[in-house]
Amino acid sequence: MPPFNRLDWPIAAAMLQFPAVTPKGELVQDQGPDEWAVSLQEVVDAGFIHFDPTDSWLRIADLSEARLEEFLRTVKQVGLSIPAITTARRSVIDPDHGDEYLAYSHRVLDTAARIGAGVVSFGFLRALTPAQQQALWFWTAPGPKDPDDPAVWKLAVTRMQELGRHADEVGVNIALEMYEDTYLGSADSAAAFVRDVNHPRVGLNPDWGNLVRLLRPVERWEAMAEKTLPYAKYWHIKNYFRSEDAATGNVVTAPAPLEFGVINYRKAVRMAIDAGYDAPFYVEHYGGDGLSVSATNREYLRRILPR
Amino acid sequence: MPPFNRLDWPIAAAMLQFPAVTPKGELVQDQGPDEWAVSLQEVVDAGFIHFDPTDSWLRIADLSEARLEEFLRTVKQVGLSIPAITTARRSVIDPDHGDEYLAYSHRVLDTAARIGAGVVSFGFLRALTPAQQQALWFWTAPGPKDPDDPAVWKLAVTRMQELGRHADEVGVNIALEMYEDTYLGSADSAAAFVRDVNHPRVGLNPDWGNLVRLLRPVERWEAMAEKTLPYAKYWHIKNYFRSEDAATGNVVTAPAPLEFGVINYRKAVRMAIDAGYDAPFYVEHYGGDGLSVSATNREYLRRILPR
Amino acid sequence: MPPFNRLDWPIAAAMLQFPAVTPKGELVQDQGPDEWAVSLQEVVDAGFIHFDPTDSWLRIADLSEARLEEFLRTVKQVGLSIPAITTARRSVIDPDHGDEYLAYSHRVLDTAARIGAGVVSFGFLRALTPAQQQALWFWTAPGPKDPDDPAVWKLAVTRMQELGRHADEVGVNIALEMYEDTYLGSADSAAAFVRDVNHPRVGLNPDWGNLVRLLRPVERWEAMAEKTLPYAKYWHIKNYFRSEDAATGNVVTAPAPLEFGVINYRKAVRMAIDAGYDAPFYVEHYGGDGLSVSATNREYLRRILPR
Repeated sequence: MPPFNRLDWPIAAAMLQFPAVTPKGELVQDQGPDEWAVSLQEVVDAGFIHFDPTDSWLRIADLSEARLEEFLRTVKQVGLSIPAITTARRSVIDPDHGDEYLAYSHRVLDTAARIGAGVVSFGFLRALTPAQQQALWFWTAPGPKDPDDPAVWKLAVTRMQELGRHADEVGVNIALEMYEDTYLGSADSAAAFVRDVNHPRVGLNPDWGNLVRLLRPVERWEAMAEKTLPYAKYWHIKNYFRSEDAATGNVVTAPAPLEFGVINYRKAVRMAIDAGYDAPFYVEHYGGDGLSVSATNREYLRRILPR
Repeated sequence: MPPFNRLDWPIAAAMLQFPAVTPKGELVQDQGPDEWAVSLQEVVDAGFIHFDPTDSWLRIADLSEARLEEFLRTVKQVGLSIPAITTARRSVIDPDHGDEYLAYSHRVLDTAARIGAGVVSFGFLRALTPAQQQALWFWTAPGPKDPDDPAVWKLAVTRMQELGRHADEVGVNIALEMYEDTYLGSADSAAAFVRDVNHPRVGLNPDWGNLVRLLRPVERWEAMAEKTLPYAKYWHIKNYFRSEDAATGNVVTAPAPLEFGVINYRKAVRMAIDAGYDAPFYVEHYGGDGLSVSATNREYLRRILPR
Repeated sequence: MPPFNRLDWPIAAAMLQFPAVTPKGELVQDQGPDEWAVSLQEVVDAGFIHFDPTDSWLRIADLSEARLEEFLRTVKQVGLSIPAITTARRSVIDPDHGDEYLAYSHRVLDTAARIGAGVVSFGFLRALTPAQQQALWFWTAPGPKDPDDPAVWKLAVTRMQELGRHADEVGVNIALEMYEDTYLGSADSAAAFVRDVNHPRVGLNPDWGNLVRLLRPVERWEAMAEKTLPYAKYWHIKNYFRSEDAATGNVVTAPAPLEFGVINYRKAVRMAIDAGYDAPFYVEHYGGDGLSVSATNREYLRRILPR
């Protein structure tokens, strides 16, 4: 029996739509609770009762204990709860900031335990290149690549084992986000990486949306699902239209609501649950009104989850 | 006055999303009623009260009478009814299996009459080529083509006349599915074919979605509608995004919900009803979560059908 | 405080889906109220209580007073009201019809005042070329271009000042529609034009959908928003999927519902309201079932407007 049903499965809003710097140039990291409440209220107004304080918006692990308590009070006041914490672009093998991000990752684990979030999403994605920042869709411009170097792979494995031990001590799970051109950039590589880490607390965030949107050949989602769902510990869910011309190889993609894109989440979610998936879902959407589409995606998930 | 309104017009779910072979390698054709009920219950859960036992899922015409009764009991128990039967890729002029599929088509007519389904969809589409099976979207790879040979056209006409006589004896209609590169591959050819058959029981299934998704120039749906709706006896309804660059001729398509695609079904359905259309609708969708999109399409149809 | 909230902000249906000539060859301009009522009832059936009698359907400014009264009675009977009037392809600097369209524009202002519509949309778009008429999507074929000629720009400014004075006398606002290859074809040019007109009654209709659908490089909507929303006096709202390959520059677009397209209207509407926007919205959609998508877009706007 799955631990939740379509009515009570936690479905968390991403905070991707909310930038770290306000239009006035103010850092969200420095805002007071009243200002945080404005963004959180918007999430509530879109119908969410769960959200993930994605660190592209706010690094709650870098708040003082007093400020964290203010934050949690605000979250509670607007009526939200936090089942998970997502980090973005804080690779522990970042060539320039790896050590710093490793220390940060440890703080995130402690914070997750402190606030009762059961899972944290880490990944090897790095800061966007200038070309990616210029692009309408950053995934159509070349980005950083994890090196084809066994020593760096080994370092990544070792650091994840270290984080896994910490996670185990504080009772939190780790999900590693699949992302192109990283060691988690294909289903085979992601599964191999997790097997190398070989720690019961460390699994995958099978975010295939990161891959099916690429303008290059990609593995079919069903094949990726078979390989990666058994390791899933958290799940960033998003979808894309993907046109492929079999005659020319021409590929065009565009962000799509969950129901309409190329990944069949009705089937994928069933496969996940059959494989024992019992963690929250994280609904995100790039392009246009991400919060509204995330809300639409939440309603779709409610329709297709088990009764 | 149309025979139905937006509340009671029969709108049947396709069973395209349900494969003939289960993940465990079991044939649906050999399953017992409890297993059929799982798939049928999923259709019910998506809000359908009508479905079409599309033979890519289950060939009900090939069940023994005892098994057919089990099937019908199951259908009734879950709360579904069957207004029509669709066959797929059983061309009576298939070079290798034409005679076999002709015999099968006769059995389908008898089965339709036996279970009270008023219409059957036949077509000249053939098995997918290996290249089509490999493609993300099979319609972007070249498929079989009906020969430019008057003798084969004549054979197709003769066999449809034979099936038309049988259909008339048992009180069932035949709708021929428009499909690229067959004798029903354009509005003009489809209309000419039906006129050659010249039997009141034999009309068209104006499935323009099969055509507007092609990455080649295609006739505008309005022109196809004028030519084919007067012959419509059943209707596979689906839609596509279709981008065409007038300057370069570049075409990109993707599966779309009915409301959002290039075919204006509000207008098409009105044209059909004005032309006397009184048969069920069949909602299908390739790509992603076809059952959910089919349910969304059903709700759209309910909104635009006459009060 | 914005003057309306999500429940009562006027959101007008476009009449783009309704052609000026019926399938039987009859001009809507010559129809009687019973025939107008059929189209208006369809708008009501789609859930609208406001509509804009777009003049591609019916030129209400060219009705006699008796006929206009019939029209208004019909509008009232079906339960609609008219917050604005949109003109299409009646450029006051049209090389062949500029004088005629100027006179017509004056009549439109008087009619708007007569019927209590607070704003009129004018623009410099011209009749579609034959290539545009042939195209599936007219904006993918080259269209007329406003000349790079200061004398014509000056004439355009002068005529808009003249219309602005008239508008002021009768208490109506003028919104100039952003449209490619006209003097209102980019955010910078549109803002410069309005500043040249320099009349408090004359502002913009920031219809960025006209631009983001183009298969050429276009400015990001956020940048256009900053430049044009301060001048907005009416707003044609529509959205598009827009795929851009940063590596090749390849662009593909397709009409999209407001919620799903590249422009984030949640953010854009907030920016507009922060800049003082207090006029109605006009929901339109090209391609497929424009009326249904417009209704879907209306519901989306209701969700994201201020409580």
